Amino acid sequence: MSGFELTILGCSSATPTSTRNPTAQILQVAGHSFLIDCGEATQIQLRKFKIKFQRIDHIFISHLHGDHYLGLMGLLSSMHLLGRTKELFIYCPNGLQEIIDVQLKYSATVLNYEIHYRIHDTSKQELLFEDDKVSVETILLNHRIPCCGFIFREKKKELNLRKDVIHYRHIPIAAFADIKKGKDSGEDGKTIPNAELTFPELPVHSYAYCSDTCYDETVIKQVGAVDLLYHEATFTEDMKQRAKETHHSTAADAAKVALKAGVTQLLIGHYSARYTDLNPLLDEARAIFPNTHLAHEGLKVNLETISVNKN
Amino acid sequence: MSGFELTILGCSSATPTSTRNPTAQILQVAGHSFLIDCGEATQIQLRKFKIKFQRIDHIFISHLHGDHYLGLMGLLSSMHLLGRTKELFIYCPNGLQEIIDVQLKYSATVLNYEIHYRIHDTSKQELLFEDDKVSVETILLNHRIPCCGFIFREKKKELNLRKDVIHYRHIPIAAFADIKKGKDSGEDGKTIPNAELTFPELPVHSYAYCSDTCYDETVIKQVGAVDLLYHEATFTEDMKQRAKETHHSTAADAAKVALKAGVTQLLIGHYSARYTDLNPLLDEARAIFPNTHLAHEGLKVNLETISVNKN
Repeated sequence: MSGFELTILGCSSATPTSTRNPTAQILQVAGHSFLIDCGEATQIQLRKFKIKFQRIDHIFISHLHGDHYLGLMGLLSSMHLLGRTKELFIYCPNGLQEIIDVQLKYSATVLNYEIHYRIHDTSKQELLFEDDKVSVETILLNHRIPCCGFIFREKKKELNLRKDVIHYRHIPIAAFADIKKGKDSGEDGKTIPNAELTFPELPVHSYAYCSDTCYDETVIKQVGAVDLLYHEATFTEDMKQRAKETHHSTAADAAKVALKAGVTQLLIGHYSARYTDLNPLLDEARAIFPNTHLAHEGLKVNLETISVNKN
Repeated sequence: MSGFELTILGCSSATPTSTRNPTAQILQVAGHSFLIDCGEATQIQLRKFKIKFQRIDHIFISHLHGDHYLGLMGLLSSMHLLGRTKELFIYCPNGLQEIIDVQLKYSATVLNYEIHYRIHDTSKQELLFEDDKVSVETILLNHRIPCCGFIFREKKKELNLRKDVIHYRHIPIAAFADIKKGKDSGEDGKTIPNAELTFPELPVHSYAYCSDTCYDETVIKQVGAVDLLYHEATFTEDMKQRAKETHHSTAADAAKVALKAGVTQLLIGHYSARYTDLNPLLDEARAIFPNTHLAHEGLKVNLETISVNKN
């Protein structure tokens, strides 16, 4: 699997509507299908959008408000019933394991696979996962209960060899690995610069997920200049007071974070059920940050395309 | 609200499909909207079928397998967020309150309404609820974990007065209440028989819900000759061994229960995800009990019509 693609499975806030599901997203990158939050009916959405949920090995839960995790027990149960034996990693706030375990106890279920829970440290940004291609860090958000966002970053990719030059210069196979990492070839005055042997570096991409949070300047620095920022925009500015009381953001707040962090594109979501027409939210954000788009169920965003547009 | 109407919100078994939701039903009778089981995404189904969920005051949970209760936390949360203050009654197995409470704790939520939990006594059939128009009793089912079905029965209805006769016979208003209950009018040899003063008795209806259970003769006696029986039919007979292992029924099992109990109509559901074509289940049941129908999401069954067909 190549590419870096986000699929929106749900983007309503706490009370779902007949057309909008609670929060869940799938990020497909570097061979992984990362599940980000898992609101009620996520397993139904995964089926609807034909995403194979047994490929999910890492689940990132932002916080323990129901609209961000209530679909998890059903998904775990279906993974079990459909024969999963592969271990599963869940990155989550303290308490989720207790919630899952009490439900397993009363349903007299012993899962056929192991779950590894990693509890968020909400005192500092931390690295949750990395392999040779991608890393995932937390973003400390400001919500009514402990809540983390996540940044997914591709790592620097190996350089592609220019086979014609490699052949012409008689470069030995043993040297390929180092050249792909950016090293020059040859010794003793016969050095061939790496730039001659390889194609230009491929761009790497990054995605930041911020839901749920009120407007907070500390979030901006943590997010930085990612390619794509998903930021909650529960309300419009006329509901600013309600946003403050509930520790949520307005569309203008989301746009300010995008602008100050210097991201390339902003995707807003987590809309209050009061909005059937989402254009007021979009207009409000675009007045501050023009490259804003609305999330909707089934939306796919190719991060590589965003990057091409930027460069 | 008059009538006696069942709406199917979900009829899949443990793993939902892209077209079938986990178990939930609404029974509207005598001014009540009874919710029977509450699988994942029930609140979304309620919205889809335009059923006002704040009218639900009594929720009956059969057992603690996720496909029968995982939608409850989300529904309770939405009721709270949308301003409910009315108390709510939940009839359920031991453990459900613990499951709900741990989730309320970690979401730092105090509901604006009170929940009264009534734990099923799984040692004997019991009366869970009654008012002057309807009663609800348990049915002891035979499943892998403690599990109850439910019988909903209308009570004998007040008789309708024949106004012409009442007027002609100068019956005083004070006597109306007794006459509606079936008493004769008058005294001392001037008795007017009730049959002359009232229209014939209106039929009363009954509905039995049996999910999940293996075939068990003791269920038959408990169900009796109800108008409508919903009985799980997870498998066809060729999967009999699997049905036994998982404590579920085949379509033939469901039909045998319907036949031996002497019900008027059988509705089957709780289909395994392996069946995309449900006709083999229907055919198998109809070979034993011809008046069998398939449940599907959105199906409405008017119990009064069933009764008319019977008489």
